[in-house]
Amino acid sequence: MTGIRKTHKAAFFYEIAGPFKIDEVPTPEEVPPYGLLVKTRSVGICHSDLHLWQGDYKSIGLPKSLPWIVGHEIVGTIAKKGSLVPESLREGTPVLVYAWQPADENDEIVAEGYTQLASRRRRYAFDIEGGLQEYIVVPHYKYVIPLEGFEEIESIAPLGCAGLTTYNAVKKIRKYIRPDDYILIVGLGGLGIYAVQWAKVLLPEANIIAVDIREEALQFASKIVRDVVYTKVNANTIEILNEITKGRGVRAVIDLVSNNNTVPIYSKILTTKGVYNLVGLMGHEVTIPTQILIRKEIVIITTYTGSLADQINVIKLAKKINYKEVISERFKFTEEDVNKAFNKLKEGKILGRGIIVF
Amino acid sequence: MTGIRKTHKAAFFYEIAGPFKIDEVPTPEEVPPYGLLVKTRSVGICHSDLHLWQGDYKSIGLPKSLPWIVGHEIVGTIAKKGSLVPESLREGTPVLVYAWQPADENDEIVAEGYTQLASRRRRYAFDIEGGLQEYIVVPHYKYVIPLEGFEEIESIAPLGCAGLTTYNAVKKIRKYIRPDDYILIVGLGGLGIYAVQWAKVLLPEANIIAVDIREEALQFASKIVRDVVYTKVNANTIEILNEITKGRGVRAVIDLVSNNNTVPIYSKILTTKGVYNLVGLMGHEVTIPTQILIRKEIVIITTYTGSLADQINVIKLAKKINYKEVISERFKFTEEDVNKAFNKLKEGKILGRGIIVF
Amino acid sequence: MTGIRKTHKAAFFYEIAGPFKIDEVPTPEEVPPYGLLVKTRSVGICHSDLHLWQGDYKSIGLPKSLPWIVGHEIVGTIAKKGSLVPESLREGTPVLVYAWQPADENDEIVAEGYTQLASRRRRYAFDIEGGLQEYIVVPHYKYVIPLEGFEEIESIAPLGCAGLTTYNAVKKIRKYIRPDDYILIVGLGGLGIYAVQWAKVLLPEANIIAVDIREEALQFASKIVRDVVYTKVNANTIEILNEITKGRGVRAVIDLVSNNNTVPIYSKILTTKGVYNLVGLMGHEVTIPTQILIRKEIVIITTYTGSLADQINVIKLAKKINYKEVISERFKFTEEDVNKAFNKLKEGKILGRGIIVF
Amino acid sequence: MTGIRKTHKAAFFYEIAGPFKIDEVPTPEEVPPYGLLVKTRSVGICHSDLHLWQGDYKSIGLPKSLPWIVGHEIVGTIAKKGSLVPESLREGTPVLVYAWQPADENDEIVAEGYTQLASRRRRYAFDIEGGLQEYIVVPHYKYVIPLEGFEEIESIAPLGCAGLTTYNAVKKIRKYIRPDDYILIVGLGGLGIYAVQWAKVLLPEANIIAVDIREEALQFASKIVRDVVYTKVNANTIEILNEITKGRGVRAVIDLVSNNNTVPIYSKILTTKGVYNLVGLMGHEVTIPTQILIRKEIVIITTYTGSLADQINVIKLAKKINYKEVISERFKFTEEDVNKAFNKLKEGKILGRGIIVF
Repeated sequence: MTGIRKTHKAAFFYEIAGPFKIDEVPTPEEVPPYGLLVKTRSVGICHSDLHLWQGDYKSIGLPKSLPWIVGHEIVGTIAKKGSLVPESLREGTPVLVYAWQPADENDEIVAEGYTQLASRRRRYAFDIEGGLQEYIVVPHYKYVIPLEGFEEIESIAPLGCAGLTTYNAVKKIRKYIRPDDYILIVGLGGLGIYAVQWAKVLLPEANIIAVDIREEALQFASKIVRDVVYTKVNANTIEILNEITKGRGVRAVIDLVSNNNTVPIYSKILTTKGVYNLVGLMGHEVTIPTQILIRKEIVIITTYTGSLADQINVIKLAKKINYKEVISERFKFTEEDVNKAFNKLKEGKILGRGIIVF
Repeated sequence: MTGIRKTHKAAFFYEIAGPFKIDEVPTPEEVPPYGLLVKTRSVGICHSDLHLWQGDYKSIGLPKSLPWIVGHEIVGTIAKKGSLVPESLREGTPVLVYAWQPADENDEIVAEGYTQLASRRRRYAFDIEGGLQEYIVVPHYKYVIPLEGFEEIESIAPLGCAGLTTYNAVKKIRKYIRPDDYILIVGLGGLGIYAVQWAKVLLPEANIIAVDIREEALQFASKIVRDVVYTKVNANTIEILNEITKGRGVRAVIDLVSNNNTVPIYSKILTTKGVYNLVGLMGHEVTIPTQILIRKEIVIITTYTGSLADQINVIKLAKKINYKEVISERFKFTEEDVNKAFNKLKEGKILGRGIIVF
Repeated sequence: MTGIRKTHKAAFFYEIAGPFKIDEVPTPEEVPPYGLLVKTRSVGICHSDLHLWQGDYKSIGLPKSLPWIVGHEIVGTIAKKGSLVPESLREGTPVLVYAWQPADENDEIVAEGYTQLASRRRRYAFDIEGGLQEYIVVPHYKYVIPLEGFEEIESIAPLGCAGLTTYNAVKKIRKYIRPDDYILIVGLGGLGIYAVQWAKVLLPEANIIAVDIREEALQFASKIVRDVVYTKVNANTIEILNEITKGRGVRAVIDLVSNNNTVPIYSKILTTKGVYNLVGLMGHEVTIPTQILIRKEIVIITTYTGSLADQINVIKLAKKINYKEVISERFKFTEEDVNKAFNKLKEGKILGRGIIVF
Repeated sequence: MTGIRKTHKAAFFYEIAGPFKIDEVPTPEEVPPYGLLVKTRSVGICHSDLHLWQGDYKSIGLPKSLPWIVGHEIVGTIAKKGSLVPESLREGTPVLVYAWQPADENDEIVAEGYTQLASRRRRYAFDIEGGLQEYIVVPHYKYVIPLEGFEEIESIAPLGCAGLTTYNAVKKIRKYIRPDDYILIVGLGGLGIYAVQWAKVLLPEANIIAVDIREEALQFASKIVRDVVYTKVNANTIEILNEITKGRGVRAVIDLVSNNNTVPIYSKILTTKGVYNLVGLMGHEVTIPTQILIRKEIVIITTYTGSLADQINVIKLAKKINYKEVISERFKFTEEDVNKAFNKLKEGKILGRGIIVF
């Protein structure tokens, strides 16, 4: 493959919460036999990248070393192919990189199809360095999803984490829903803005309600998705939700926050045989009202990203959601812009989603 | 129907935690068109009866009035039939009374088959007076399960609550189990002693572990059910469980306690895609480790008694468990014995199960 | 209840395929304790009514006697209430009658929620006389669904059979569908015209194809439901379907015919892990390609009407489909019109659905 | 790796139904990066090997060429490892080879976990040459299951097809079973003898019935598995089954034959909400009684071998069945014995299972 430089640019932070610097790093010369070298085109800026940078995951040993590269929502083009990759997959093909790879395929939970829950994981930004660089290696070509028929592909990047996780979250609650039920989405940040879209697509028989504490997040979401009851959180939220649902309560909560400001409150307005889906990783421990849950046989489920099969399905469905307008900010892959992007996210000033375009 | 006295004996408590007295009350003269009058033969003494008596449910408005009659695990014989009850169901037939009746059948959750989760409930001892009396009314003959082919029927009574709840609890976790998995049962009291039996019958591909803080409860259980790893709870329980499971952890916990001494601890040794089943009603609020649960996609489910269909299945399977030896104490329906029974249960001195035989 | 005449009009046929006559019959004076007397407002004319009239069900002993009254898709108003029916359900309330009642509620399959599959059944037109009369008895008030907020209620009648069956059929295949799958609906008669509507509502992630041999049925359907690929059956149907699905085949077939002109053909274009749903009762025996099915782990499921819970859900969702325009013909409850209606249906000249309005 | 000869022995047939000859073939020098070279220890003789040899699969283009090597139930030891196989998997380790490998992992159905249903398959004996040779290549080490703690490993070979398929078949019907139900297993040949064992292990709440037309097969099975009602097929089989089930019928049929001598007959004694599992590949087309199936909402499911996750579970559970005594005949890997083995199987003279030991 011609035209691949020996070195390429990568964005590092050298200390927790320190500035991002762009350095030259060696481009891998060898691609694994079934693997690919992918040239990065855009990377979504996800809250967990922010957490890694800020040191919020120190307690679980992340980042593994310094300096470090974040970025796990990655869209690119195939730059080079391993010796055993089939002809049919061509160089130049635009792809989304599935980020939740197992480090070892010899794993029962992977055999069951739960790729993202592998015993040994190889996740960009977490277990290995991330996608905020010009080239990355993918160890098996099955972990890229070709992107066909999209007007532009940069906006697809967040579907590798935010879009995937929320698709999985909505898919999981589907079997609990009865016609005309109410569904509550908690949090309209970078995940919620996708959750509310999948809910509208995949739960046509239900009524969707979404809450947030930020007026501007509600405003933004209301432009992206209609036919949703948007409600600002205040001291009377429960009363308001009871009114909206005519006293019936909600059948499902998809909680993109999942801390003690949300779980103990919203779990109390679930109806019999309802479901609470913990998705957000904001809390470490939360309190649940056991008696209420048991007497109504309510269940609490959890969602951690999604499997490779889910990722394939996300791309198949992407054209049904507004994947473009949800991207409110596009940054360049320059030191200035990368630093700006992370600082803006930190300050809560990015509505919808931001991406870094290479 | 001849031989039914105008009045019959009933055991009341006149004040919270006060002594039980046996009085004469009028026997209903009219039986509802599809209903039955059942002559009580035995009543199981359940912890929730104890709670009612002790006033532990005052916060949810129970008991509804004083004096009150408890007892919801009821075996008896059909004494009188309503005008529309079919010929084929004969007077004198021994039956278990399904206690978790809806007050109104016109209820969507009941139409789905979840009888016990009805919007409006008619539960003996809770919503209406209980079975610690010589005659009770059942509003529809479908709510009694004929008992055929049992050596003796008195011991069957606890299958109306303890046996039903634990059957449902075990049945619910079945779909989560992979071969050779470990299952943990927490608490070997009046519920746990049935849970461990159902687990042995219904989860043949799994390894069963049971824990309790009481040596004597473990001893008793080990005589009733073999091939279970019984472990006394101490400061090193988690280490011991890790050793037993060779570091794999457990796929499912059935928690018959469900308070802050159990949930925050045992939820941490669940394996990926594991399940925690909250059954016991000992805690009101518990803390759960959100991050751990989400990263392994562990779910928390709940079990509240069981449906009419479950109850029918419990009776079909009853001969596969040791329903007789589990009854460690038989009391008579006398003031002395009823008081003795409740005081003994209060002091934690009844291993397995006690029943009151009429 | 005032204003109920001692006798009322009922439409009988006195011999197989003979003319319908309207006679006076006694109106029941007694209503069962939990029951209702319903004044009929409209009755859908279903193909199974036609079969009963024509003697097509003689082999299974139907009709049970002559003369006989057909009609099982029934909308009416509550005329009189049994002694134990709650206050809240008022006389005059418009209701859909759930027709698939058990004759005996003491039935395990009913306890599981499968009302329509009861061991002993009490179906209007089949087990008891039908709804083509001015008053009918409903034995329990839970078997009527109040109709609220509809512009007009006569058109709702077919939702008691055609709408219910197809809702259930679509609901059952839902868990098999992956995004962007193709779904094939076979037959656009009285059932298919509802199936295609439910599919559009409940399977938003799929692509719907519908086939029929009648050009006019395709025309009619295309006016009621858009975004469906309508295809006329001819010698090259399989090739056409392969083209439409780009060689992928279909994930699910909903077959409203289910005879040897459909099953052996359409089962061959199912994709791996696909599902064939037999709904129509046109064939008695069909041939299936075992080897093909097994090697792709395809399943064949079946749908027989729906449960009471399904019926409730159908009414909740009714406003999402075009329940009015699907009614192409309205007949009066006169001898002339009833005869005209059945003869027109017999000749295949009713597109969509016909109803008889009282 | 020392001690691997440049060539090794392989058993070929040069023409359809012609004699097997043992020739020397080159031993692969290169092992794929994640792959293994496995030294064969024993190979089960399966009916599909017989079909391949006899030319019964000519219509689907099998065998792909002549001469050909059959054998897909393979146990061996790891002889050589690819460059990327982890340290922890040692040469010399005894393993079962999972035979139902995809030819390309980049496949949505494989991502879902259904390895055996891959769009492009690499099955020994079918898509590539089989295991009746001293060495075979496995392309990824995840496709071997280490065998630990077994008394002897040769008998394990049939668990790679017969044991796997029947485990999957029994697992699939589990969710349909209610306590005390009857299950019918049709055919006690090489598959049925495992099916009846899995049914006893995994369906403890059910009653197992098994039928065959051969008295000796029933005799053999009755020695391997107890507490099963064994019944010889005759003109009154349906009456006999009705008697055994007290008129209730069976909830599930596992049909290891699946032709017109079995499906049209046994599908008629299924109970409401029952399930017919087509497993055997003896028939190409069968007739099903549509009306009966629909009115009882009976489903027909299918089973094709099993996934890699199923295979792992089969090995985990193997000690719960009688995997040794089921092997009635052990042949040597000599021309004489291989020919004897296939001729004996052809004549229907192998009860239980035969294996070829290297």
